[in-house]
Amino acid sequence: MEENEEMIEKVISLITEKKLNELKEYLIHLNSADFPSIFEKLTDEQMVIVFRILPKDKAGEVFVELDSDDQELLITYLTDREIKNVMDELYMDDATDIIDEMPSDVVERILKNTRATDRKIINELLKYPDDTAGSLMTTEYVSLRKNMTVDEAFAEIKKKGLRKETIYNSYVVDSKGKLIGVVDIKDMLTTDRKNTIEEIMDTNVVKVNTLLDQEEVSKMFDKYDLVALPVVDKDELLVGIITIDDAFDVMQEENLEDFQKMVAINSTNDSTYMKTSVFVHAKNRIFWLLFLMLSATITGAITNHFEATIATMPVLVAFMPMLMDTGGNCGSQSSTLVIRGLATDEISTRDILKVFWKETRVSVVIGLVLALLNGARIWLTYSPKIAIVVSLSIFFVVILANVLGCVLPIAAKKLKLDPAIMAAPLISTIVDSCSVFLFFNLARLFFG
Amino acid sequence: MEENEEMIEKVISLITEKKLNELKEYLIHLNSADFPSIFEKLTDEQMVIVFRILPKDKAGEVFVELDSDDQELLITYLTDREIKNVMDELYMDDATDIIDEMPSDVVERILKNTRATDRKIINELLKYPDDTAGSLMTTEYVSLRKNMTVDEAFAEIKKKGLRKETIYNSYVVDSKGKLIGVVDIKDMLTTDRKNTIEEIMDTNVVKVNTLLDQEEVSKMFDKYDLVALPVVDKDELLVGIITIDDAFDVMQEENLEDFQKMVAINSTNDSTYMKTSVFVHAKNRIFWLLFLMLSATITGAITNHFEATIATMPVLVAFMPMLMDTGGNCGSQSSTLVIRGLATDEISTRDILKVFWKETRVSVVIGLVLALLNGARIWLTYSPKIAIVVSLSIFFVVILANVLGCVLPIAAKKLKLDPAIMAAPLISTIVDSCSVFLFFNLARLFFG
Repeated sequence: MEENEEMIEKVISLITEKKLNELKEYLIHLNSADFPSIFEKLTDEQMVIVFRILPKDKAGEVFVELDSDDQELLITYLTDREIKNVMDELYMDDATDIIDEMPSDVVERILKNTRATDRKIINELLKYPDDTAGSLMTTEYVSLRKNMTVDEAFAEIKKKGLRKETIYNSYVVDSKGKLIGVVDIKDMLTTDRKNTIEEIMDTNVVKVNTLLDQEEVSKMFDKYDLVALPVVDKDELLVGIITIDDAFDVMQEENLEDFQKMVAINSTNDSTYMKTSVFVHAKNRIFWLLFLMLSATITGAITNHFEATIATMPVLVAFMPMLMDTGGNCGSQSSTLVIRGLATDEISTRDILKVFWKETRVSVVIGLVLALLNGARIWLTYSPKIAIVVSLSIFFVVILANVLGCVLPIAAKKLKLDPAIMAAPLISTIVDSCSVFLFFNLARLFFG
Repeated sequence: MEENEEMIEKVISLITEKKLNELKEYLIHLNSADFPSIFEKLTDEQMVIVFRILPKDKAGEVFVELDSDDQELLITYLTDREIKNVMDELYMDDATDIIDEMPSDVVERILKNTRATDRKIINELLKYPDDTAGSLMTTEYVSLRKNMTVDEAFAEIKKKGLRKETIYNSYVVDSKGKLIGVVDIKDMLTTDRKNTIEEIMDTNVVKVNTLLDQEEVSKMFDKYDLVALPVVDKDELLVGIITIDDAFDVMQEENLEDFQKMVAINSTNDSTYMKTSVFVHAKNRIFWLLFLMLSATITGAITNHFEATIATMPVLVAFMPMLMDTGGNCGSQSSTLVIRGLATDEISTRDILKVFWKETRVSVVIGLVLALLNGARIWLTYSPKIAIVVSLSIFFVVILANVLGCVLPIAAKKLKLDPAIMAAPLISTIVDSCSVFLFFNLARLFFG
């Protein structure tokens, strides 16, 4: 953090003192990933000065790191020649991502200043549905033939001169372009350079299809400890590779989405809290709030049914919040654990009975502890009879909440629905109705 | 999934038919990451057969992938000689992680069968506190001197013969062992082999201290798109590196922890839902449940205060669940968004006013929509007066919930507390009290 502020101060002072050579020298040695936080503190004009001063390759690297608002702003200031310089430096997946976010007039201006060959690739990549392997991949990779020697392979890598992440693995294809093997750079370096690629390639290649969901892609990186993952089309032809930095981003994005689902927010695209407008925030939140509000009237209708009981014993109402909250919290806990387990493939739908049995035992333990402690408290401050009614209610509500919390997400998955719709808010609302119903019935039973 | 079942069937049939040569041939070509799911379906004896049949290097790879229960079980079946073979193949960070999970008698047996040099390194690594950079790092890395030629550097890499992830970057140290540069394998491959390392090394090295928290470590991988990160001690001496696969695991672990905190579960170590015992599950969940249950009695006390109002107008009680749920849901939404924003550094504590202003506007929009829709419904089914009381309550409760949901986590962070303690359950409980208080006061005001 402090380092960051130092950087920003230094840059601003060099700009205001017009020491542009010194500024250039300083900027070249900064990491591209540090530029967004610097740009945030600069005026538009200062930002353009900083960007223009960068050498071509650094400018490309920095441009990729910026958010789409800053990218758009820069493009409006840059000349066609400057845009071309940036585009020439970009990798195809990054170029595609940038274009995907821009308004159409900006896209037109970018594409006009892009090499014809690159434009063709970008247009191809734009065709893949969002959130699939195809939309994540890049077309820059090293492809080798199995009868090449290691020496020839090194020459090929040198000739291509790709960025770092894309050369750690090279891919071996046959004459039709079908993926038949993978070679790690380490194996090329530690073997005799006269050996052929066939001798050192691994034919058991972990690969994915262009249409695989991006969440599954990032799980494969995790499971197989990959740095790159080849993507093939339906004919098994190699069409691109996905690099680990993109898998990392996907995982972050999917996690944010899961957090939002957990509190009944319709997941947005990957824009951030601060950049999302008030109207979009409200829109994302309101649908489920409305639905849950109306569902909660069912609980209200149940209480209405017990109006006479309440009128004669209004003290009972004092226990409703505690009962509803405790039920809701228990249900949230078990549904969250189960939804996470399903998301990470630790729990499968076939485990439903095992999970049910586990949650039942857990909830009996929890229910007993909560019921006894609370019962004792109420026994002392109110009356034994109320203590028994409340304790029994808590005990059964805890069990019910835990069981619903684990069974409903698994059932949703079995019905091919997203288990996350059974997250905390909906579970709480369902448990509320049940707990109020149970509580007042028990009260009627005990007090007549 | 289906592929997985095929693998399992094949392995079992080869074992039962005693076709051990064929089994070996088949197993060698499987990915090590696929073994855990196969082992899960085998008996202990079958597992030992499969493991024994593997060549030394594969056995090491597979062993690392297993969970600690299976590792412990295998060790009890293996001879000292076999344990030694496995340990010789392990990388130091993996060996340390394994030992960290084992009971002391097993640890003793493992260490007895470990090379003296490795044992020393493991003991050093075990000293770093859990969840720090030091506890994640491995001591296998390529270290170069700046006056080496690229050719000599390649010889050094070949001599060391480390695993893949650890050779993508090499580190340059001075005569004292101080980290002064980093060289990517790509730059070594694309430059003249007579050049010195100094000419191609990057002196602006992203590095961390041994004691940095692991969550910060994984954020650095994300920010700077790294595949490895060097770790230095307080004197800037290079002591190890962290590889991306470990950063990926950390991110998963931290995310699970965050999900658990969101529903008031004390985060456990990284053991999974299924493997965690009923007692441990209950223990992790009960503390906050108890705390929240007792806190909810405050809301109860507030309702008690309005006993007379309730006795004369028991219909009011019917609106409590809806009011409490809606307030709770709004508070959960805004607190979750803000807690995530804080966790990913998108929101800083200095943004408190900006966030406050944003949430206020969002909640006015949401509050208006919910109040009007619900008001209209109640106007038609109950009475205009009740509609006004409920609508006003909803409107203000929504605003209050959103504001508390954003301010409390930021305030917690400012007080150096974990913002996640202000997650959904606690926010709901606080909002509950406020909403009940507001609602009955408004009711008294309107109905006298």
